[in-house]
Amino acid sequence: MTCSCHESKTTESDLTIPENDVLITSNDPHHPANLICELCKTFYNNGWVTGTGGGISIREENNIYIAPSGVQKERMVPTNMFVMDLKTHEYLRKPEVYKPSACTPLFLSAYEMRDAGACIHTHSQAAVMCTLLFDKVFEISSIEQIKALPKITEAGNLWYSDKLVIPIIENTEKEEDLTGALQKAIIEYPSATAVLVRRHGIYVWGPTVWKAKVYNEAIDYLLELAVKMKQMGIPTVKNNS
Amino acid sequence: MTCSCHESKTTESDLTIPENDVLITSNDPHHPANLICELCKTFYNNGWVTGTGGGISIREENNIYIAPSGVQKERMVPTNMFVMDLKTHEYLRKPEVYKPSACTPLFLSAYEMRDAGACIHTHSQAAVMCTLLFDKVFEISSIEQIKALPKITEAGNLWYSDKLVIPIIENTEKEEDLTGALQKAIIEYPSATAVLVRRHGIYVWGPTVWKAKVYNEAIDYLLELAVKMKQMGIPTVKNNS
Amino acid sequence: MTCSCHESKTTESDLTIPENDVLITSNDPHHPANLICELCKTFYNNGWVTGTGGGISIREENNIYIAPSGVQKERMVPTNMFVMDLKTHEYLRKPEVYKPSACTPLFLSAYEMRDAGACIHTHSQAAVMCTLLFDKVFEISSIEQIKALPKITEAGNLWYSDKLVIPIIENTEKEEDLTGALQKAIIEYPSATAVLVRRHGIYVWGPTVWKAKVYNEAIDYLLELAVKMKQMGIPTVKNNS
Amino acid sequence: MTCSCHESKTTESDLTIPENDVLITSNDPHHPANLICELCKTFYNNGWVTGTGGGISIREENNIYIAPSGVQKERMVPTNMFVMDLKTHEYLRKPEVYKPSACTPLFLSAYEMRDAGACIHTHSQAAVMCTLLFDKVFEISSIEQIKALPKITEAGNLWYSDKLVIPIIENTEKEEDLTGALQKAIIEYPSATAVLVRRHGIYVWGPTVWKAKVYNEAIDYLLELAVKMKQMGIPTVKNNS
Repeated sequence: MTCSCHESKTTESDLTIPENDVLITSNDPHHPANLICELCKTFYNNGWVTGTGGGISIREENNIYIAPSGVQKERMVPTNMFVMDLKTHEYLRKPEVYKPSACTPLFLSAYEMRDAGACIHTHSQAAVMCTLLFDKVFEISSIEQIKALPKITEAGNLWYSDKLVIPIIENTEKEEDLTGALQKAIIEYPSATAVLVRRHGIYVWGPTVWKAKVYNEAIDYLLELAVKMKQMGIPTVKNNS
Repeated sequence: MTCSCHESKTTESDLTIPENDVLITSNDPHHPANLICELCKTFYNNGWVTGTGGGISIREENNIYIAPSGVQKERMVPTNMFVMDLKTHEYLRKPEVYKPSACTPLFLSAYEMRDAGACIHTHSQAAVMCTLLFDKVFEISSIEQIKALPKITEAGNLWYSDKLVIPIIENTEKEEDLTGALQKAIIEYPSATAVLVRRHGIYVWGPTVWKAKVYNEAIDYLLELAVKMKQMGIPTVKNNS
Repeated sequence: MTCSCHESKTTESDLTIPENDVLITSNDPHHPANLICELCKTFYNNGWVTGTGGGISIREENNIYIAPSGVQKERMVPTNMFVMDLKTHEYLRKPEVYKPSACTPLFLSAYEMRDAGACIHTHSQAAVMCTLLFDKVFEISSIEQIKALPKITEAGNLWYSDKLVIPIIENTEKEEDLTGALQKAIIEYPSATAVLVRRHGIYVWGPTVWKAKVYNEAIDYLLELAVKMKQMGIPTVKNNS
Repeated sequence: MTCSCHESKTTESDLTIPENDVLITSNDPHHPANLICELCKTFYNNGWVTGTGGGISIREENNIYIAPSGVQKERMVPTNMFVMDLKTHEYLRKPEVYKPSACTPLFLSAYEMRDAGACIHTHSQAAVMCTLLFDKVFEISSIEQIKALPKITEAGNLWYSDKLVIPIIENTEKEEDLTGALQKAIIEYPSATAVLVRRHGIYVWGPTVWKAKVYNEAIDYLLELAVKMKQMGIPTVKNNS
C-alpha cells in the first residue's frame, strides 16, 4: 500500500523495452503482468500469501502468466513473470533468476479441464482450519454469501439454500504431486470451482480473473464463517426439515 | 488504499462529460457518486462487502444513487452508478452493462417509510453470527457504544443503560423478496434504525449518509462485541436488578 | 490512509489564515491540531474510535487541544479543534457547529492531577472485554510488553515480572459524570497511567503525546493478550512462588 | 501507509549530507537504513512491534544497522539508526539522543554464531501465546507453510511432513540477560532459525534480510495457526502412524 508515485515515474522514463519484456510490459493496469502484482499485494494484506506462500496465474488467450516460485508475493514486479503457451506448454518467457512455480501443473489443470481464465492459490488459515474440521468435503448451506458462487454445471449462481460443496484432497510432499488428486476432484465434483488441500490451502478458479477473485473472496468468507460456527457448535449445513 | 494521484490526473483531463454522466460527475468528493465509491472501499477493507456482497445507496433530494448488482464493491467508479427518481421509481441513469441492485426495493423502503438519506447493506460476519446466536431480536444493553445510536421515536440518542433492540427477519431465496418482512419489521420496531437478516447480513439507514455510516459502525462494533461476550458466557443484556 | 497529495495542495493555496484559525494552523505535522487528526486516523483503523467513539486531547504549554464531540474521528481536520486555556478553563477557540467533548473534564483531570501532556480515550473492545472479565482492577504480570509502561511513583519503567495494575471504575449515564470516580482512581492508584471504565473503554495519559500513544498501544496489547489468556484458561498474573 | 510524496520531495532537497550521516544516507530503498524503516512500518501494522516493542537489525558486510531502543518503530527515519562494526563491536554511528537497543548482544549472537544477514525480533501475540501453550519447544508438522523454512543443517527447506521445532527459552528481567540462554539454544538446536522467548516474543534470523523476513512471516503464520488448532483441540504434531 505504498504510494505508486515513484514507481510510475520510473515507468515513464523506461522508454525502450527489452525485447523479451514485450509480453509483460503494458501501461494498462489490467494487463495480466500488472494485475498479478496488484492482486498479490491485496492477497498478502489478507494473510493469504505471506512467507512466499500461494500464488496466482492469469490466462490471456493462449498465454498463461504465472508468478515465480518462492518469491515474496507482495513485492513482485512484472519482469518477474513467467509466460507459458497453453497449447505447447513451452515457456514464452522464463526469467533466469527464478524457478517456475510448482503450482504450474495445477493451474494448467484448471485451464485445460475447466477452460479457466485465472486460478488463485492461497494458504488462507481459514482454508487450512476447515480442512482440519471437515472430512472429505467442506459443506455449508443457507448463507447469503453462497449466492456469489456459480453452479458450473448449469448457468447462473447458487441459491441461498443450496449447499456449497468443495472437495478436500490430501496434501503431498511436493506441490506438483497434487496434480493427479486435483484432476480427479475436478472430474468427480463437476460443480466445484475450487479444491481444498488438507493442511495446505485452496485452489480457486473462474472463467475470468475477476470471477476467480470474487469466488475466492466469497469462499474464504464462508470458510472463515464456518470456523466461527464450529467454534460455537453451530452446524454449517442447515437442517431444513 | 492506492494513491489517488493518477486517478485525479485522469479526472482533470476529462474535460467533456457525456450527457448522461452529468448526474454522476463531480469534483466534490462528497457527491453521492464519489462517496459511494469511497465508502465501499472502506467497507471492503472491513470485510463487509467482499465477494461483491453488500452495497450502499445515497439519496440527494429526490435522486437515489445505487451501486449496481454483482460488481466488486471496492473497484467501483462513479460511472457504474444507477440513479433513480424516488417519486416515480424511474431510472434517471441506468448503465447498460450492469444489473440494478436487488437491494433496490429494500433501500426504497428505508427512504419511503423512514425518510432515510442513505442505506447501507453489509454481509458483516459479526451480523451473520449474531443472527445465529439470537432468536427474534438482537439485544444488548449497558455498553457505552450504544450511545452512538438514535432513539428514533424521540429526539436524541440512546443512553448507556438503554437496551438496543434490532429485529431479525428470516432470509429469502431472492433479495427482493425480503421487502415485505423488512417493511413489517420497520413498522413493528419503530425505534430501530437497522434490520438484521438471518444468515445474510444487515441493513442500516439514517437521515444522512454520515449518520448511516456512524450507525452502521456503532452497530457492527456491538455485534462483534456481542459474539465475544457469548463466547465467554457473558449475557449481552445486563441484569440491573 | 488516503494519499495526502490533494490535501497538501489545498494547504499550500491557503495563503491567508482567518484570525481565529491561527491556533490550529501549522505546516508542522507535529502541531497538536495536525497530530490529533493523524493519530485519530490510526486509532480508527485499530477499531478504537469507530462510530464517533473515543477521542484524544493534547496539551501544548497551557493550551489544550480537544477533538469535538460526536464527530467521525477519522475524518477530522484541524479547523474542527477546540482549544482551551488550562488555567482559566476558557475556550480560546470554539467551533460553533460542534459540541465540546464530554470527555473534557476527564482530560482536565489528567492534566491537572498528573501534569499530563496528552490523554487518549478509546472504546477498544479488548478494554471493554477486560472490564467484563476482571473485577475491581485489571492485573497482568510477567509479560515483556509490561516494560513499555512507567512506574510513575518512581523514575523508570516497570520490570518484566512487575504486576501492572489498572483500576476499573463503573460507567455512568453521562460521560462527564465519570469525573469524580476517575479522580478518585487517580488518587488511589498513584502508579496508574490509565483507568478502565466498565463496559465503556479506557483513558490513558502520559507526559507527552508520544508517551501517551506508546502507553496506550502497550496497554491495549496487554488487554488483548489477557482476553486470549482468559479464553485458554491461563491466569494473567503469574504465580512466581 | 502514508503517501511518501512529501518525504521524497524533502529528500530531493537535502543536497548536502552531514559527514556522520553518510553511512545511513542512500536513495536506494534497499539500503539497510531505509529498509529497517520500511519493514518496521509493516511489522507495526501486523501488531508485532507496537508500543516500541521489537526491532530489527540488518548486516551489510561488516556493518550492522540497528534500530534504537524505546522508539516508535513505525516512525523511525534513517538518521535514528545505530551502526556497529561487527568485528570490533565499536559503534561507527551512535545517535546521541537515543539508547542502543538492548537486543544488540542477541542480534550479535545470530551474526556471529550463524553468519546471519539480518535478525528480526517481534512481540507477536501468537508467539507469546505459543510460549504459554507449549513447554520446552514449539512443534508443528504437516502444514504446507513449513516448506518456507530452511533445514539449516543441510541445504534446502523442510518438507511438508517434517516437524518444525523452535526452542523456547525463559525470559529475563533485562533483555541483554537473554544472551546466554539464546546462545545455548542456538548451539543445542542447530536446525533452528528462530528462538521463542517465554512471555516475551521471538527472534528470527536468516542469511539475508529477505530470508529473515520470509522466515519470520512463515513462522508467525504457523504460530497463529497453532493457537487456533489448540483452541479446537487439534494436535499441532500430526501422528502419521
